Amino acid sequence: MGAAQSFRELCDRTKNTNVRLSLPAVCIVWQTAMIILFGVFIRYNEESDTHWVEYRKENNLSDIQNDFYFRYPSFQDVHVMIFVGFGFLMTFLQRYSFGAVGFNFLIAAFGLQWALLMQGWFHSLDYTDGKIKIGVENLINADFCVAGCLIAYGAVLGKVSPVQLLVLTLFGITLFAVEEYIILDLIHAKDAGGSMVIHTFGGYYGLSISWMLYRPNLDQSNRLQSSVYHSDVFAMIGTLFLWMFWPSFNSAITDHGDGQHRAAINTYLALASTVLTTVAVSSLFQKHGKLDMVHIQNSTLAGGVAVGTAAEFMLMPYGSLIVGFCCGIISTLGYIFLTPFMEKYLKIQDTCGIHNLHAMPGVIGGIVGAITAAAATESVYGAEGLRNTFDFEGEFADRSTSKQGGHQAAGLCVAICFGVGGGILVGFILRLPIWGDPADDNCFNDEPYWEATPPQDKMSPKSGTINSLNFSLHFVSLKMFCFTSIEHIIIFLNLIFFFFFVKTEFII
Amino acid sequence: MGAAQSFRELCDRTKNTNVRLSLPAVCIVWQTAMIILFGVFIRYNEESDTHWVEYRKENNLSDIQNDFYFRYPSFQDVHVMIFVGFGFLMTFLQRYSFGAVGFNFLIAAFGLQWALLMQGWFHSLDYTDGKIKIGVENLINADFCVAGCLIAYGAVLGKVSPVQLLVLTLFGITLFAVEEYIILDLIHAKDAGGSMVIHTFGGYYGLSISWMLYRPNLDQSNRLQSSVYHSDVFAMIGTLFLWMFWPSFNSAITDHGDGQHRAAINTYLALASTVLTTVAVSSLFQKHGKLDMVHIQNSTLAGGVAVGTAAEFMLMPYGSLIVGFCCGIISTLGYIFLTPFMEKYLKIQDTCGIHNLHAMPGVIGGIVGAITAAAATESVYGAEGLRNTFDFEGEFADRSTSKQGGHQAAGLCVAICFGVGGGILVGFILRLPIWGDPADDNCFNDEPYWEATPPQDKMSPKSGTINSLNFSLHFVSLKMFCFTSIEHIIIFLNLIFFFFFVKTEFII
Amino acid sequence: MGAAQSFRELCDRTKNTNVRLSLPAVCIVWQTAMIILFGVFIRYNEESDTHWVEYRKENNLSDIQNDFYFRYPSFQDVHVMIFVGFGFLMTFLQRYSFGAVGFNFLIAAFGLQWALLMQGWFHSLDYTDGKIKIGVENLINADFCVAGCLIAYGAVLGKVSPVQLLVLTLFGITLFAVEEYIILDLIHAKDAGGSMVIHTFGGYYGLSISWMLYRPNLDQSNRLQSSVYHSDVFAMIGTLFLWMFWPSFNSAITDHGDGQHRAAINTYLALASTVLTTVAVSSLFQKHGKLDMVHIQNSTLAGGVAVGTAAEFMLMPYGSLIVGFCCGIISTLGYIFLTPFMEKYLKIQDTCGIHNLHAMPGVIGGIVGAITAAAATESVYGAEGLRNTFDFEGEFADRSTSKQGGHQAAGLCVAICFGVGGGILVGFILRLPIWGDPADDNCFNDEPYWEATPPQDKMSPKSGTINSLNFSLHFVSLKMFCFTSIEHIIIFLNLIFFFFFVKTEFII
Repeated sequence: MGAAQSFRELCDRTKNTNVRLSLPAVCIVWQTAMIILFGVFIRYNEESDTHWVEYRKENNLSDIQNDFYFRYPSFQDVHVMIFVGFGFLMTFLQRYSFGAVGFNFLIAAFGLQWALLMQGWFHSLDYTDGKIKIGVENLINADFCVAGCLIAYGAVLGKVSPVQLLVLTLFGITLFAVEEYIILDLIHAKDAGGSMVIHTFGGYYGLSISWMLYRPNLDQSNRLQSSVYHSDVFAMIGTLFLWMFWPSFNSAITDHGDGQHRAAINTYLALASTVLTTVAVSSLFQKHGKLDMVHIQNSTLAGGVAVGTAAEFMLMPYGSLIVGFCCGIISTLGYIFLTPFMEKYLKIQDTCGIHNLHAMPGVIGGIVGAITAAAATESVYGAEGLRNTFDFEGEFADRSTSKQGGHQAAGLCVAICFGVGGGILVGFILRLPIWGDPADDNCFNDEPYWEATPPQDKMSPKSGTINSLNFSLHFVSLKMFCFTSIEHIIIFLNLIFFFFFVKTEFII
Repeated sequence: MGAAQSFRELCDRTKNTNVRLSLPAVCIVWQTAMIILFGVFIRYNEESDTHWVEYRKENNLSDIQNDFYFRYPSFQDVHVMIFVGFGFLMTFLQRYSFGAVGFNFLIAAFGLQWALLMQGWFHSLDYTDGKIKIGVENLINADFCVAGCLIAYGAVLGKVSPVQLLVLTLFGITLFAVEEYIILDLIHAKDAGGSMVIHTFGGYYGLSISWMLYRPNLDQSNRLQSSVYHSDVFAMIGTLFLWMFWPSFNSAITDHGDGQHRAAINTYLALASTVLTTVAVSSLFQKHGKLDMVHIQNSTLAGGVAVGTAAEFMLMPYGSLIVGFCCGIISTLGYIFLTPFMEKYLKIQDTCGIHNLHAMPGVIGGIVGAITAAAATESVYGAEGLRNTFDFEGEFADRSTSKQGGHQAAGLCVAICFGVGGGILVGFILRLPIWGDPADDNCFNDEPYWEATPPQDKMSPKSGTINSLNFSLHFVSLKMFCFTSIEHIIIFLNLIFFFFFVKTEFII
Repeated sequence: MGAAQSFRELCDRTKNTNVRLSLPAVCIVWQTAMIILFGVFIRYNEESDTHWVEYRKENNLSDIQNDFYFRYPSFQDVHVMIFVGFGFLMTFLQRYSFGAVGFNFLIAAFGLQWALLMQGWFHSLDYTDGKIKIGVENLINADFCVAGCLIAYGAVLGKVSPVQLLVLTLFGITLFAVEEYIILDLIHAKDAGGSMVIHTFGGYYGLSISWMLYRPNLDQSNRLQSSVYHSDVFAMIGTLFLWMFWPSFNSAITDHGDGQHRAAINTYLALASTVLTTVAVSSLFQKHGKLDMVHIQNSTLAGGVAVGTAAEFMLMPYGSLIVGFCCGIISTLGYIFLTPFMEKYLKIQDTCGIHNLHAMPGVIGGIVGAITAAAATESVYGAEGLRNTFDFEGEFADRSTSKQGGHQAAGLCVAICFGVGGGILVGFILRLPIWGDPADDNCFNDEPYWEATPPQDKMSPKSGTINSLNFSLHFVSLKMFCFTSIEHIIIFLNLIFFFFFVKTEFII
């Protein structure tokens, strides 16, 4: 740990939170790269192309059998979860609501483009013309992929700069796509709601980064690491939209028909059960039995995470209730005992408690999925139902359910490894003193990155109306921007080189 | 009234709001009971089971004809209404936002599980194997059933403990299921949007409970029974989501095809009309013509309630507008004149004014439904359309529309009787001095049941981060929990015995 | 300008914001007119009528092929955009949240009824019986039509009375319907997401009105023309719901199947791209690279506007990204440079900056649409696809794509002309000193039109509970209402006469 220690000291120089050049440069350059890569690679698939009318007639389909009508309502619900759900869930801090909802917005908007590319190369590449063909299912998968990075954001909320978040997202999406390919395609594990692929990976990815970015003097920001009355109500908007739409999340990319139907029912029930045990444990462990908003905002969602993998299986309604029951208890106990323990002894500062909401329930979900798969029988599923549910087709046609259970467990291990390993790697990069992160006494504060609305809610004139900008100043800054953006392009090229190196290494 | 008076005095002992043992005990025990009952009774139906693939082929259906695709978008909208709509609508009080949105969350999560069982026994029981087979329509109905109890919560908002709310919900769901069975199955009345079944019942159930729980000295909490600027804006979130998704509410379980289509159109129009008359009356009866947020938040929704029963009928677009027109006026006048009158002379303290938003419009809706049904003719509906719309099949094949009108009116009476009778009964139980409700000078306050965020929005550290819990203390409390939970199980068993008694009594 | 100047002086008398008679009168009378007109004109179409069951069998359709299932999920998303999206986007002002969300609610609820009539006469009139037949597509179009007026509201936010807004809406809807008929039917331009029809028209309509209502002394209200911390978070609710559901907006009325699918994908991508360039420009032009909430709240949406017309075309995923890329930059620069310039030199006070969010991106969208249409080839679209996408059927069967491009451009010009011309006309009417608009030093303030919750968030008793109204006073006011409503009916009849005059003039 000596080397790590000295590296840490090297990095802990005086902080400069000015991102005036780095943030625009990264945004513009990366977005330009997206446009070029989309131009080269991405096209509409046969269901979103104007040739659908011919395709439809050839395959004797009706317009309503376009995949759009099977998945679009679920897609919109997932979209709400990503942007409003995750965004508002993190607004609970008294002075970090802009950062919570705004940076969530930024990294999700970048992440989904990069995810369309990365997942497309692995899953939707048409080898006849080398193009990725996208439809509504790709959009859902891109949103899923982004969710992994937003979970990781929860661990470092308030302690990083937007540039760091974009870097976190770039690598997170890349790692996610590789990990997903290994788990779903190579190992052929099933993971409808992403307990392993999304939540376990995202959770450990974020926790490892937070461990790498450990701030011993974070208590200097203690005055801001708390909620106020209305910020807790805002956070409940996030909680409720996540809670309500989780059935759509877990059923969005499952099989047409019974698959989507069953996944929605299972998730609905698991979540209902979680609420009651969360309230029970929260009340039991507080003075005078008072409830804690932190638990209500977060632990009530754990059941949705934990039922993700098995949502499509014949988990049975009571099985879903049991999963939710346990997760509500475990997640709330995690907030009460584990989070302070991890901060004190493991040096992991987990702002939103993602270990309790995503990492642990994700692991439970993986285990539940493995057990449910191993216990699946033809008498319960029916011969054809079993084949459909586990996709025992092609090279996997003669896989047994017990073997499938083992592969599910293997998938869980891959997710944890990618999360921890990837997080340490990316955390190492994010410790470099070039990213503009805030000082220890200025964390959980919107002030460094947002035009100030004064904390006492005094008046601050809107820039749009009484803007007194100095034009000449802007031309100077534009020149500086052009100059330094070249510098950043070089850094960017290095990064691209680096992650292709990483990617190649993992695939081979 | 002498006996009632002395009973009241007996109950009005010094209040102890500590629910540290009762709340966890009720949550854990009831949730465990749910798991057992679900294990015994609840299974997937043929559309959410893996055997769907065989069922589909036998019946020559396409995947898109799974009921999931007909109803899931509406289900999600209803789900949003239940959790965000009702929850945020009640956040208008300045210091009861946690309780409004949090307890709403709790009782809805419990209620929907119990509703799946209760409604399942009456409607979805498969007599071949004694199991309840559930699909997406059951989930919608469970949400509907919960809505009745959330309406009742509106009347007692801020004056009861979470344990009382859970008891209110347990009995409310039970009564609802019986009442619904009588109205829809025995009387064979139609009630697509639940004007009678949900709103009339829920409204009078809540008002009766509030009457039983009358607090003569509630003015001691006057300082808190008002809104602040931002709490009114939060409440508008609830209003708008209820308003926007009401067409989904009224059309969620109507007939496939034209039934859902027509119900959505009728509700959309009735609600639009209500907004204008609400604004008109609100402005007319205030000094200087200023609008009152209470009216805008609540009365604008009355049209959706009142068009519920007739939404599926050929009410005609102008008919919907007329219903909305009248309800906007009546509901707003109710807030201005009737609510203060009821509090002063009838001793009914109705925090959210559910009499104006649900009870009265619900009764109007029942009457409108009866008239519209009685006036239905084959020339307007078409022979097959008439049969479809009113389900004149099986034993009801030769019912005339005028007779149907009479049965609609009978259904309305049943709803009122169940509401008032059930409410008095449950109110009696809730007066027992064991439930931990707040004192008269501490109503409308989150402080007794929630970890404090100080009213001046000062900083309060989050329990998760600087938690200094004493472990040994917890083991003591756990022991106490085990001990007293036995006590509560006994109470619970008595309750179960009691409501089965009530149920049997009402059915026979 | 001498005459205009003297007219202005004439109008600038002492302001009286009492709308106690005018607002109720307008609401009641107009709503009554709606009921009468709906009774005469509006009926259900064959998909929402009880005869659907016969129609379905005749045409060999399944229930799921009812248009309801193609469009209802998108309709609900659009509905959320109109009421929550637009409403909350405008809550950013510190003391105008009630007005933002409440008046938005009022004018949308009126506007959609009037839009059903106006658009019905032009598009859905059944000439066999003279009735307008409505279904879910009409509801979506009515919401679209309302959007134009809500955009215009953004320009005059905080400076007008509710009565003025209702007048603005009445004329706005009327102009919209005429303009839409000319662009879509006569010119046969395509405009799926309404870049031209909705955003360009609505933007210039609002800006022209704002120019007519120029207030030289508006700086007297400067103290209120700014945000506070939580009002900015509320506004982000609006932003995010608009952003997330914009794919539904642009795809709601496109062709079944690939049309809806492709429009959703294009919009999703354009919006993602916009976020990154908005952040880049916002950071680049602020001191220390801090982000401005005004830009994040508004400019991030510009890509959705600009991709509206071309959303249904084969714009290609990278094309959508490019459109979003440019619009994010242009819109943010607009907020920084153009809005202050317009206020200072052009005398256009644009509260929400609709020129940057709607007008400019709308024009860009029209141009992109024209170019994309002109560049369309049979090799990309396929013969049938080209015919489907551009509706080259009937009298337009032999139109070439290059000609279509020209007609798209012509459509854009019509939208601008109607916006500017209509806005000046309506602005002239709104300057009359009879509408109860606020004084220059009382703008951006809820106080004149809403029962006060004091700015310091002190307690204010709810009118519903401790209402001390004087009944006799009310009877007096009712009498006055009846009397003056006659006066207003006369004004109303004049208005009707006037707009029929306008309508006739424009059609002929």
